[in-house]
Amino acid sequence: MDKSLPKIIIACDHAGYNLKEYLKSQLLALGYNVDDCGCESADISVDYPDYANIACKKINPYSQQLFLEELAILICGSGIGISISANRNKHIRAALCGNIKTAKLARAHNNANVLCLGARFINNKKSLAILKVFLQTKFEGGRHEARVAKLS
Amino acid sequence: MDKSLPKIIIACDHAGYNLKEYLKSQLLALGYNVDDCGCESADISVDYPDYANIACKKINPYSQQLFLEELAILICGSGIGISISANRNKHIRAALCGNIKTAKLARAHNNANVLCLGARFINNKKSLAILKVFLQTKFEGGRHEARVAKLS
Repeated sequence: MDKSLPKIIIACDHAGYNLKEYLKSQLLALGYNVDDCGCESADISVDYPDYANIACKKINPYSQQLFLEELAILICGSGIGISISANRNKHIRAALCGNIKTAKLARAHNNANVLCLGARFINNKKSLAILKVFLQTKFEGGRHEARVAKLS
Repeated sequence: MDKSLPKIIIACDHAGYNLKEYLKSQLLALGYNVDDCGCESADISVDYPDYANIACKKINPYSQQLFLEELAILICGSGIGISISANRNKHIRAALCGNIKTAKLARAHNNANVLCLGARFINNKKSLAILKVFLQTKFEGGRHEARVAKLS
């Protein structure tokens, strides 16, 4: 484990389970500390809001003000349900991303702290590429600062 | 204007202005009543949370319980910022959709009442196809009912 890397929180519903397991294994191999909040099976139907809530509660509500980099990945079938649920929390900026360009914009312009993925619409390889860009991109600030402030 | 069709609320930031104007003209031609909440120019930089808020306030907070079909379309550059902003409201289920399959799932499974589009990532023709599917698809209820209830 590389202590210079941020901890990554990860959660999903049953439709996102296989992709969560894949991304978790890749993150661990890269040296990240991964906090897996479930679910634990692709075969038992669960409700995406429950897992979004477990993950979002682990992110410090004051992380932005404290310049803490706490990031989460949330996965459901389309990514839509789990992104709606996550964005109910004012300290969460959850971005549903289907390509690396939007992942970059989500961090650079929206200071997103949660990446949402739709497991039915994206394969392992593309998901990993999106995740890497999300983790590597920093918030640009500037003209985006006031807009992000209006989200909380 | 066809009074059997629901009123469609539409709003955007400067990056979404041209696509908003296109979709508005198409909706009017189809007979919809369109409530345009701005912005009014592609050339003056505005903040996406402001326009998300204006549009979301026009949707009755009890629309789900009252079986009112009130729908909105929100557009910014990536669709991410405006979807985060819209989902801060508990009566809003805003779905960022990049294709017709996710637009269908957003209505059928998540009972989404707001369609978010990323104008920099989607052309007019595809946006219109997504919008039509979004407007034509009904919520399936059933096992999705309890999950949607957990969002509010």
